[in-house]
Amino acid sequence: MKYLHVVVLLCLSFYSNANYVFEAGHPSLQEWLLPDKAPAPDNNPFTEAKAELGKMLFFDPRLSGDGNMSCASCHSPMFGWSDGQKTAKGHMGRTLKRASPVVTNSAFNHIQMWDGRSDSLEDQALGPMRSAEEMNIDMETLLAFLKSSGYKDHFDTAFPNETESVSEQTLSKAIASFERTIISNNSPFDQWVKGNSSALTPQQVRGFKLFVNPDKGNCAVCHSAPNFTDDGFHNLGLASLNDEDTDLGRYSQRPLRLMKGAFKTPTLRDISLSAPYFHDGSADTLLDVVNHYAQGGVVKDNLSPNMKPLTLSEQEKKDLVAFMQSLTTPPESFSLPNLPL
Amino acid sequence: MKYLHVVVLLCLSFYSNANYVFEAGHPSLQEWLLPDKAPAPDNNPFTEAKAELGKMLFFDPRLSGDGNMSCASCHSPMFGWSDGQKTAKGHMGRTLKRASPVVTNSAFNHIQMWDGRSDSLEDQALGPMRSAEEMNIDMETLLAFLKSSGYKDHFDTAFPNETESVSEQTLSKAIASFERTIISNNSPFDQWVKGNSSALTPQQVRGFKLFVNPDKGNCAVCHSAPNFTDDGFHNLGLASLNDEDTDLGRYSQRPLRLMKGAFKTPTLRDISLSAPYFHDGSADTLLDVVNHYAQGGVVKDNLSPNMKPLTLSEQEKKDLVAFMQSLTTPPESFSLPNLPL
Repeated sequence: MKYLHVVVLLCLSFYSNANYVFEAGHPSLQEWLLPDKAPAPDNNPFTEAKAELGKMLFFDPRLSGDGNMSCASCHSPMFGWSDGQKTAKGHMGRTLKRASPVVTNSAFNHIQMWDGRSDSLEDQALGPMRSAEEMNIDMETLLAFLKSSGYKDHFDTAFPNETESVSEQTLSKAIASFERTIISNNSPFDQWVKGNSSALTPQQVRGFKLFVNPDKGNCAVCHSAPNFTDDGFHNLGLASLNDEDTDLGRYSQRPLRLMKGAFKTPTLRDISLSAPYFHDGSADTLLDVVNHYAQGGVVKDNLSPNMKPLTLSEQEKKDLVAFMQSLTTPPESFSLPNLPL
Repeated sequence: MKYLHVVVLLCLSFYSNANYVFEAGHPSLQEWLLPDKAPAPDNNPFTEAKAELGKMLFFDPRLSGDGNMSCASCHSPMFGWSDGQKTAKGHMGRTLKRASPVVTNSAFNHIQMWDGRSDSLEDQALGPMRSAEEMNIDMETLLAFLKSSGYKDHFDTAFPNETESVSEQTLSKAIASFERTIISNNSPFDQWVKGNSSALTPQQVRGFKLFVNPDKGNCAVCHSAPNFTDDGFHNLGLASLNDEDTDLGRYSQRPLRLMKGAFKTPTLRDISLSAPYFHDGSADTLLDVVNHYAQGGVVKDNLSPNMKPLTLSEQEKKDLVAFMQSLTTPPESFSLPNLPL
């Protein structure tokens, strides 16, 4: 059982290359398409009213202790639902140690957060509010505000069957419902998969071949169909595990040796909008990311992962970057909500 | 000369009541209409490219020292271009002493800021960035970032005739150009002035009569046509001037006795969107504002203004509030820019 991860990765690796025919619209490619709508759990079926309320809450700085951070402070549509920073800024402007993950397509994740400490959007939503390092608000204070403000009517409308419409549960359900609307599934790549042969350039098609080829980019082994993530955790050799202050990532949740310094595979959809990259924001560009992998990671100690260097020419690296740029759905201008007083 | 203000106010007071016929579309009312476009200074003619760039800059938290405040942190379209707080939150979440003024129609002001310390939008724009209490960014650092990021192309496009497209001057010109697009001039009141007799309710028309009547609300003496402000400074008796830490407002810029504790008359357009009210955020609702005036201010010491109590029934107070609510242009959903990396 100890090596189950490795076995699974090897199987995926074989599978991800074997079956593709690189022609626009080919049936073998259809596994890369996402559904139009994100799934929602049985105890929180999607409604427009919940999503609208969730949108207000997501953008409201009054959900933070000092009134100047909202969910959108770190997850902004202006920065591809991240923040454009190397790592996040928290309460009182402090610099946090991990990059703000994108919200984009998080509705398709089976597990949330860089270290997977949350298993649903509902469970995740209140975490940053409660964290003293992040939004730092007392939940009792927050619920009292929501009940006594213009929000009350919106909660009543969104949760008509609850005896108490404003609660921690409904707060997180509303935000999760909004997050389920933040979906990228209509990129040039998607259009190509659906049959529009001119949606990708020849370079981007070459990049896709390299992306799935285990002997070249080998990217799809983790950034797998359809959301370009395996929902798994991997150590990319970004930091020495011998350093005392190294972020151990998934290991904090699952103390297995393999999980030391391992972080969740992020989706690559809309990736061109959310530089810089990696859980520590250490790569400025997609080419930097490719170069990191091409070197086989930077093996800093004997606990670093056994990543082998890749055989990629400079042109092939550029082709991979061009492909990743095809994964961005052209951003629509995003409308801010008007907030209740 | 010492009493020039009083004489001017008395003249305005007479004028503001004498000439109105309270019928939708009546010529006597046309002075209340604003132009479609805000004026721009000769050295910064309006262009779409400048306004688009200014919009990005206005919403970008990288314009603050710790990367989590933008102009929009205090002047957000989600809160009628203010922040929904009693007084503003500044650098590191500190509470500042004045309410965030709205940006709405500031393009029509002849003088900017609560204390009038700025005479143009261009002059105002960099103030909060430089302030250690507010955005707290070093201008040299900021310009270096703008020159080395995706912003450079946008500055080149917006300022094609400058030898150095990124500078303090162009930064402030771009932001000012964007602010000139934040205009409220199509409220129910405006529609009524233009001739749509059903745009105001009978109660709102009654409120307007009270608003301009010097023997009743006497509001228009300062909240005058067309932007519901005289661009002047008045002490409303909100705080005792004998307290050492009282904010002396305009007096800090013009040390005249009359200016002690005097603050700029804000526009009332879109006023229903930007509670709480007054320069110190001390009134929660428009009815609280009316009640403050009805009492003749709160005379706390012999330096407080000589405001006389108003003769207003409870119904008349409600009529005034109903009228003020007619000054809000139905807010369109506001689209966030995508920010350059």
